[in-house]
Amino acid sequence: ADAQAGRAKAMQCQACHGLDGKSKLPEAPNLAGQVEQYLVKALKDYKTGARKDEMMTMMAKPLSDADIANLAAFYSSLKP
Amino acid sequence: ADAQAGRAKAMQCQACHGLDGKSKLPEAPNLAGQVEQYLVKALKDYKTGARKDEMMTMMAKPLSDADIANLAAFYSSLKP
Repeated sequence: ADAQAGRAKAMQCQACHGLDGKSKLPEAPNLAGQVEQYLVKALKDYKTGARKDEMMTMMAKPLSDADIANLAAFYSSLKP
Repeated sequence: ADAQAGRAKAMQCQACHGLDGKSKLPEAPNLAGQVEQYLVKALKDYKTGARKDEMMTMMAKPLSDADIANLAAFYSSLKP
């Protein structure tokens, strides 16, 4: 996975999760240093609908598997 | 919420999440310093079935709202 490409993709995530992975909204979780595999599963579940959230369902819909892998690599690489 | 009571309750969570909130298993997320409200929502969703996971559904079933509040207070209070 490519954390650098993940950072670019994270431009659309930063409003809630930040580019530092620190939550910017009370509902949004911190992502910095989170377990990579867990982040991949969360994004895939939002994409397939196995996990539901108004915002995240919308955000995950257009993501490719590569985007998901890169975003997970990026956020897990950040210092919590 | 009572983080101390949460710590006692977390005895049953530590196998995967640790008492330090650092993941002990590749599927288990880090919880230390996570957003308190997010942890409450996650546990409630596992309890109601809005969110599904083999292990977490089982773990959340017996939790009271107070247990959930205390666990969230405990894990969010830990340094990530």
